[in-house]
Amino acid sequence: MTLVTKFLGGAVLTAAIAGTSFAASHLDPAVAGAISARKAHMQLYQHNAGTLFAMAQGKVDYDADSASAAASNLATLATLKQQGYWIPGTDQETLGEDTRALAAIWADGSDIGAKADAFVEASAAMNAVAGDGLDALKGAIGAVGGACNECHKSFRGSR
Amino acid sequence: MTLVTKFLGGAVLTAAIAGTSFAASHLDPAVAGAISARKAHMQLYQHNAGTLFAMAQGKVDYDADSASAAASNLATLATLKQQGYWIPGTDQETLGEDTRALAAIWADGSDIGAKADAFVEASAAMNAVAGDGLDALKGAIGAVGGACNECHKSFRGSR
Repeated sequence: MTLVTKFLGGAVLTAAIAGTSFAASHLDPAVAGAISARKAHMQLYQHNAGTLFAMAQGKVDYDADSASAAASNLATLATLKQQGYWIPGTDQETLGEDTRALAAIWADGSDIGAKADAFVEASAAMNAVAGDGLDALKGAIGAVGGACNECHKSFRGSR
Repeated sequence: MTLVTKFLGGAVLTAAIAGTSFAASHLDPAVAGAISARKAHMQLYQHNAGTLFAMAQGKVDYDADSASAAASNLATLATLKQQGYWIPGTDQETLGEDTRALAAIWADGSDIGAKADAFVEASAAMNAVAGDGLDALKGAIGAVGGACNECHKSFRGSR
């Protein structure tokens, strides 16, 4: 039995990839998967951005290695392909509390692409300097926070 | 007022990075953050691996662009720095249902590093060929499933 046969057999595969899903079980599986992936992606943004903002705010001591790692993660996460995430109709207006993604994301004239690009650029710029000292980090992090906030203002609903 | 001042001011920052946390609120914030990040990271593995396994199993049609994107994401996610994730004492034996990470991860002689390396290698190898057709994908995905499963067998507890 080849590895492929073994791991495509069903039970073992299920055991290998089954994980915690963060979306409600009453949803269609593809929709639940999309929402879980979106939330997970945002959670990893938050984890890494949180480290950097805490340093910039003086809540934790600046550490070049840690800042570089978090900034590298953030810039990398920003460039992951988000396939399967943005299924039309998976918005807060349609689904309610399962998601905070607003229908404006999918609306005609939505500038979410431009706003996402701004985040990619800001996070790449921060990644380039985050290990060069606290002042360098502070000089780059404002644009990252601004990009986060611009997108949230337009496209994230309240709880 | 500079962007830095503006975005390090508190309220705006909080609004920018506050997100859904997947860990229970009764935990220490650092522990809750670690567990949330771990679960989110696994969720993104699952999202991308799920796409690839579904194609390899014939549950969805093979698509080279989609396979390449998912394999690229998986290989990239495997190399993110996991700083802040593995706080000693944040295991299932200690915390109960908040996490499935077993204490064996932190035990003397733990080979979790080697098992993680095997996953990095298998996902990189799959990324190199995932766009080259269904047979190429099938030839590489067994090692990925094997690496997932090896780690889960040793280090993931039951629900």
